Amino acid sequence: MTILLSVTGFDPDRWRGALQAADPAASIVLAPAHAADESIRYAVVWKQPPGLLSTLPNLRAIFSLGAGVDHILKDGTLPDVPILRIVADDLTNRMSEYVVWRVLDHFRKGAAYRQAQARREWVDWPQPAARDVTVGVMGLGELGRDAARKLAALGFAVTGWSRSGRPVEGLTVHGGEAGLKRFLAETDILVVLLPLTPETAGLIDETLLSGLKRRTPLGGPVLINAGRGGLQDEAAILGALEAGTLMEASLDVFQREPLPDDSPLWRHPAVFVTPHAAALSDPDALAPTVMAQIAAIERGEMPSNRVDRAAGY
Amino acid sequence: MTILLSVTGFDPDRWRGALQAADPAASIVLAPAHAADESIRYAVVWKQPPGLLSTLPNLRAIFSLGAGVDHILKDGTLPDVPILRIVADDLTNRMSEYVVWRVLDHFRKGAAYRQAQARREWVDWPQPAARDVTVGVMGLGELGRDAARKLAALGFAVTGWSRSGRPVEGLTVHGGEAGLKRFLAETDILVVLLPLTPETAGLIDETLLSGLKRRTPLGGPVLINAGRGGLQDEAAILGALEAGTLMEASLDVFQREPLPDDSPLWRHPAVFVTPHAAALSDPDALAPTVMAQIAAIERGEMPSNRVDRAAGY
Repeated sequence: MTILLSVTGFDPDRWRGALQAADPAASIVLAPAHAADESIRYAVVWKQPPGLLSTLPNLRAIFSLGAGVDHILKDGTLPDVPILRIVADDLTNRMSEYVVWRVLDHFRKGAAYRQAQARREWVDWPQPAARDVTVGVMGLGELGRDAARKLAALGFAVTGWSRSGRPVEGLTVHGGEAGLKRFLAETDILVVLLPLTPETAGLIDETLLSGLKRRTPLGGPVLINAGRGGLQDEAAILGALEAGTLMEASLDVFQREPLPDDSPLWRHPAVFVTPHAAALSDPDALAPTVMAQIAAIERGEMPSNRVDRAAGY
Repeated sequence: MTILLSVTGFDPDRWRGALQAADPAASIVLAPAHAADESIRYAVVWKQPPGLLSTLPNLRAIFSLGAGVDHILKDGTLPDVPILRIVADDLTNRMSEYVVWRVLDHFRKGAAYRQAQARREWVDWPQPAARDVTVGVMGLGELGRDAARKLAALGFAVTGWSRSGRPVEGLTVHGGEAGLKRFLAETDILVVLLPLTPETAGLIDETLLSGLKRRTPLGGPVLINAGRGGLQDEAAILGALEAGTLMEASLDVFQREPLPDDSPLWRHPAVFVTPHAAALSDPDALAPTVMAQIAAIERGEMPSNRVDRAAGY
């Protein structure tokens, strides 16, 4: 039995080493020796070349090495085998670190204090209490729920929105289109952790941004997108910043990545840009999870983190 | 019965309004009508003028309106009545926000990403996991314990140091001079929340900084001081940054405040300066606590947050 590793943008040798370390007996190949390699039963991928997986006659399951599976599903020739999302504390913790960091930096007026320091100006501004600021988390999968819990532990008022509106313990959840308007209207800081699906593509647009609370304790609403760039309309974000319907943004993902050199987001004083680095996949931390799940499938079990292809996540 | 309010640097009318709102029947004066005002039983103060409190013959207790009581104790003529520290969730939460914000900004390489953005450079750096980074918290009063708990919830390895070494549930605590060396040697990010006492004055000096772990997962140790400026030797901090024994610092407090215009800290690229704003005292949030404690003393009870004058906190 062979495992195929196909990654783009990740270091393949680093991942092969980590997978091998997690199971020294495993046979791992970086590319199929020839099309229709019959020995390959599992594919472990990040942005695999389209068409590659459909050539493998005995493929049993596909594993994503990062949060999100849109990079897998956009391959139109995908064989009909289970796709497994990666769910691992290491990845979840990293994403929550990013979210809490960005929420706190906007909430505690990081940009204003950095500018005051550059002017050598000893000045402070009124600081609302966390309990008076509502952080709205869009997307309540593993990542969204963990971020919501950690923000609540810091004292923020936290609400959530998901497509289904399924209850989450300890969280006010709004659901579906009907709940979106109310969710946005009470949100001071919007955190987007949605998957990219045909339904969510372009969701962060002028309509959504103009639905955010106007008079917030911070002076205006804040957007934090650590989901996917395809969720956002960057022209609408720039327009909302210009119009004052948005005060500041932290963006880790972009419609085109790397963010083009001529994007006005790079130099916008109210925008903090990171290079899709909110939650980097750590081979040493994630490889054991993948190998354990492959072993489970070999025993005839199916891990719970299977992707719903119709939903797209 | 009258309550004297004496604040320097805080807005007296704002505080009087909040105290009055918390007890509309209370008699609150901003300055004694004449020295030796016999009706004054309580003094609510922030940096009161030295000598003022000793003129009041019937004073029963003194309340501090901010974290720390060094501003009260430095009055050499202080009458021998109980001094009460303010302990309030609002103040504790604010301090923990600052600490978590600063830890995350250093840990997630905020300065490096901001510089990369200014260069329009799409680049990331290896990011250690929080579990591999040890945050050492010096000072384990209300503030230190709360910050330690919130940092641990984000996945950091957290240890603590206190003079007494008294155990804290869920935390490895080092105590006294003997424990300090070991505490420092395992600390990647040092958070200082100590009170200013004759024992702690100038404690953050070259010896302490050179005791911090050298090879940290972040590339070098980080200092965060939100205690008191009198704890730190700023020349030693600048020297350690120069020598590379310190990588970065966030300082909210300074030997002289406001920080003098000619201080090199303002313009140091590895130092983040805030104007003693880590945990601002909010009148509306704190006044009810003070008035409830005055009522308790009037009933013959003594609140638990009484200052130990010998210890200085």
